[in-house]
Amino acid sequence: MSKVLDVNGIKIGGGNFTLIAGPCTVESEEQILTIAQSVRESGASILRGGAFKGRTSPYDFQGMGREGIELLLKTKEATDMPVVTEIVSKEHLPLFDDVDIIQVGARNMQNFELLRALGRTDKVILLKRGMSNTLRELLMSAEYITSEGNDKVILCERGIRTFESYTRFTLDLSSVAALKELTDLPVVVDPSHAAGRASLVEPMALAAAAAGADGIMIEVHNDPKNALCDGAQALTPDQFDEVARKIMKIREAIV
Amino acid sequence: MSKVLDVNGIKIGGGNFTLIAGPCTVESEEQILTIAQSVRESGASILRGGAFKGRTSPYDFQGMGREGIELLLKTKEATDMPVVTEIVSKEHLPLFDDVDIIQVGARNMQNFELLRALGRTDKVILLKRGMSNTLRELLMSAEYITSEGNDKVILCERGIRTFESYTRFTLDLSSVAALKELTDLPVVVDPSHAAGRASLVEPMALAAAAAGADGIMIEVHNDPKNALCDGAQALTPDQFDEVARKIMKIREAIV
Amino acid sequence: MSKVLDVNGIKIGGGNFTLIAGPCTVESEEQILTIAQSVRESGASILRGGAFKGRTSPYDFQGMGREGIELLLKTKEATDMPVVTEIVSKEHLPLFDDVDIIQVGARNMQNFELLRALGRTDKVILLKRGMSNTLRELLMSAEYITSEGNDKVILCERGIRTFESYTRFTLDLSSVAALKELTDLPVVVDPSHAAGRASLVEPMALAAAAAGADGIMIEVHNDPKNALCDGAQALTPDQFDEVARKIMKIREAIV
Amino acid sequence: MSKVLDVNGIKIGGGNFTLIAGPCTVESEEQILTIAQSVRESGASILRGGAFKGRTSPYDFQGMGREGIELLLKTKEATDMPVVTEIVSKEHLPLFDDVDIIQVGARNMQNFELLRALGRTDKVILLKRGMSNTLRELLMSAEYITSEGNDKVILCERGIRTFESYTRFTLDLSSVAALKELTDLPVVVDPSHAAGRASLVEPMALAAAAAGADGIMIEVHNDPKNALCDGAQALTPDQFDEVARKIMKIREAIV
Repeated sequence: MSKVLDVNGIKIGGGNFTLIAGPCTVESEEQILTIAQSVRESGASILRGGAFKGRTSPYDFQGMGREGIELLLKTKEATDMPVVTEIVSKEHLPLFDDVDIIQVGARNMQNFELLRALGRTDKVILLKRGMSNTLRELLMSAEYITSEGNDKVILCERGIRTFESYTRFTLDLSSVAALKELTDLPVVVDPSHAAGRASLVEPMALAAAAAGADGIMIEVHNDPKNALCDGAQALTPDQFDEVARKIMKIREAIV
Repeated sequence: MSKVLDVNGIKIGGGNFTLIAGPCTVESEEQILTIAQSVRESGASILRGGAFKGRTSPYDFQGMGREGIELLLKTKEATDMPVVTEIVSKEHLPLFDDVDIIQVGARNMQNFELLRALGRTDKVILLKRGMSNTLRELLMSAEYITSEGNDKVILCERGIRTFESYTRFTLDLSSVAALKELTDLPVVVDPSHAAGRASLVEPMALAAAAAGADGIMIEVHNDPKNALCDGAQALTPDQFDEVARKIMKIREAIV
Repeated sequence: MSKVLDVNGIKIGGGNFTLIAGPCTVESEEQILTIAQSVRESGASILRGGAFKGRTSPYDFQGMGREGIELLLKTKEATDMPVVTEIVSKEHLPLFDDVDIIQVGARNMQNFELLRALGRTDKVILLKRGMSNTLRELLMSAEYITSEGNDKVILCERGIRTFESYTRFTLDLSSVAALKELTDLPVVVDPSHAAGRASLVEPMALAAAAAGADGIMIEVHNDPKNALCDGAQALTPDQFDEVARKIMKIREAIV
Repeated sequence: MSKVLDVNGIKIGGGNFTLIAGPCTVESEEQILTIAQSVRESGASILRGGAFKGRTSPYDFQGMGREGIELLLKTKEATDMPVVTEIVSKEHLPLFDDVDIIQVGARNMQNFELLRALGRTDKVILLKRGMSNTLRELLMSAEYITSEGNDKVILCERGIRTFESYTRFTLDLSSVAALKELTDLPVVVDPSHAAGRASLVEPMALAAAAAGADGIMIEVHNDPKNALCDGAQALTPDQFDEVARKIMKIREAIV
């Protein structure tokens, strides 16, 4: 069983199960607050929302940046939900003082300078597996953080690159069980980015829960069709409510 | 919902859930009978067992061949369980007269001559996905069977090849949900070959059930350490019993 | 240095360099004869042409079959060029009596029954690497042929499957040098199928020659735009002439 | 034809061909000077040498850092060779003032903050393709540099990840020809990292030259067995001399 991390009173790992939900990216105060309230009612205990986005093209929307962080923190205050958001440069660290979990994206999994800098903070770090990295490499990247003194690391499976094109990435759920054999760090699964299609998020979320994940992180948007980022894979609040309900039944079945 | 196939009274697909279990390969009359009885008690309704094996090296054990089929059919009679076993050449078809489900292995998924020949039989065909084939290609291979007149095809996800080396293959569970969007053929999952490690079979089997598979096929051996083939991934009858019990709880949770 | 195989007087391997060229598929007597004469003038010593095609979909053109073989053999007589063509079922073997080199396609690289049957002939076999097979697996498949008594096997690199989508497959030219360290069988390269684009065939053919391949097999069509199969990757006779000339200069540079 | 970049009088691209050579990592003043002098005599015009290394494990040798840069610059002065070395954090930029070409490693290809910072310098940037990135993504990463105002970017193919395990990575030489169709940036190839074996470096270097690369970057060490990093893939100065000679013959053959 993995060790327990405490995020502002919310426990992750050690037999606890954590639902993380929210939009791909923070778009406005109203948007993030609306979504936060609805996912909290459905059972999510941590709010996700991107402010600094790492995008393949420099001409794609790069997130609201500093303002996005501020809106996220405002929502944290209003809803009492801890928040997780991605960092893309260690220079931005001062902006993350009140962020509860700092996410390292797949493209930065081997940005070792960033990992070392995060290892010198006392934040919980959510480390995403790179899109073609092995489990051993993921664990070595976690070591870059822990060897600097910060052992509060959550590992996140988010899909790997294969030749299959129906899905954006291939969610490797065997990694969940494998990591349980290799480390005591909690493991969460992000089915939204892997699938790239909202219709596949529910079955993959249920499968991840059944495989023994310590938590699941799902993208939810109040208006997916008009989302500024990755709308095709976002669930509506109603869909998320349904998924959250089923996940809990799976959890009860396997405990 | 997928269509229903009837295998000697056992229904596959259409909301039914089918457990298929047995050894990688038939080794002796006692071995196959012992395993059959134990997996039947644990809830398996169909018996698997290899007689003709497609092995990477010509110097590896190739199965008992014709004698393996005979022992399998003897066990079928003794236990009343329908049987599934692999075919590697259409010339062997006469030996499969009393076999209930004919399996096409991953390496033969695009052996189109074999597929066409099976399309001219009235057998249920279990078609395994090739180790680097896309879902579209799997469906096109199914068309080679159905376009000849036999539409009794079950699709089987058994892991695809990636760069990850902790597991033998990467089980692509999103394929289960994806295939449900693309076809009405039943979909079963073989977690044993994908994992290549007995310890990963349970979590992957539970995940497959949660993802909505119509059935699961698991390798079980009464003495894995001395198995002639793939012992490292075989469950003992006791382990299988535990897994079968948990799978049923998952099924109840999601229906 | 690889061993030498003799194909009707044409030597393959052992320091010789062999150009194989012709259309993806035989379409008519005039087509195959016209192409044969032109590629022979450009320096090709062996004629390729498909008669039985293994296609992903059963609804794609499957080749002219028996008639295609007959046209190929007519052209052999007219031009005195040895011919290579693909076999897809051991039942067709009698049709291949006068074929000089029998090709096993990538999809059949692990069709072990077919390999064994070819191992009991005295034909030269051109064995293509499967689209996601390792070099070790390719060599094991060659063993299926040689262990039956026929050691006249040519290995063929034709590209492997990766996530890159600009090319159809990723031509793995390091396999050429690697196979030279692992076996004494001659190694030829098929850049046409890997690239999937005529514009990439020349640079890949030159690279293959520089990497030490014993031969190169190129698709040539007198009217690529109206080819029944894979026209996008076929060179015109003029383009082939240019490539053949450059390949010979590369060969002179490295010997 | 690609555009021409000028590196301290050495031209890259536009029909020129550039040999870059040197050790994986700078180890001592004597080591780097000895190697520089020998590769220069063999025809290399630019010296490579790592100072800041991105390594999978934090417990591996991470390079000499600032001192490595100093030794490299001393050697530059002594030999008059421009130097290329990797950057891993934009905070280190002031140390690179006299470095001629700044390399971005494969693991940082999508470290967009670093790319943007390099786009605001006037240095030539050598951008390595990530180990599972597509050509489109490589070009988008180049855009992160050029869109900030610095269009002096060299692209570098260094192998992609596949299931093949005989080589460390699969060198994708079709990327050279493909990039020529997609961009006017010069393209160089690093066969050393891809192969991971010294014995494969020569054939892959020749193949890269034949495929039309604008340059080749090769690891050379005066004592590979005792190299602190990647000794298995380093050529000795004598081996490099031989390869350089053959590359030039290939170049003459194709121009």
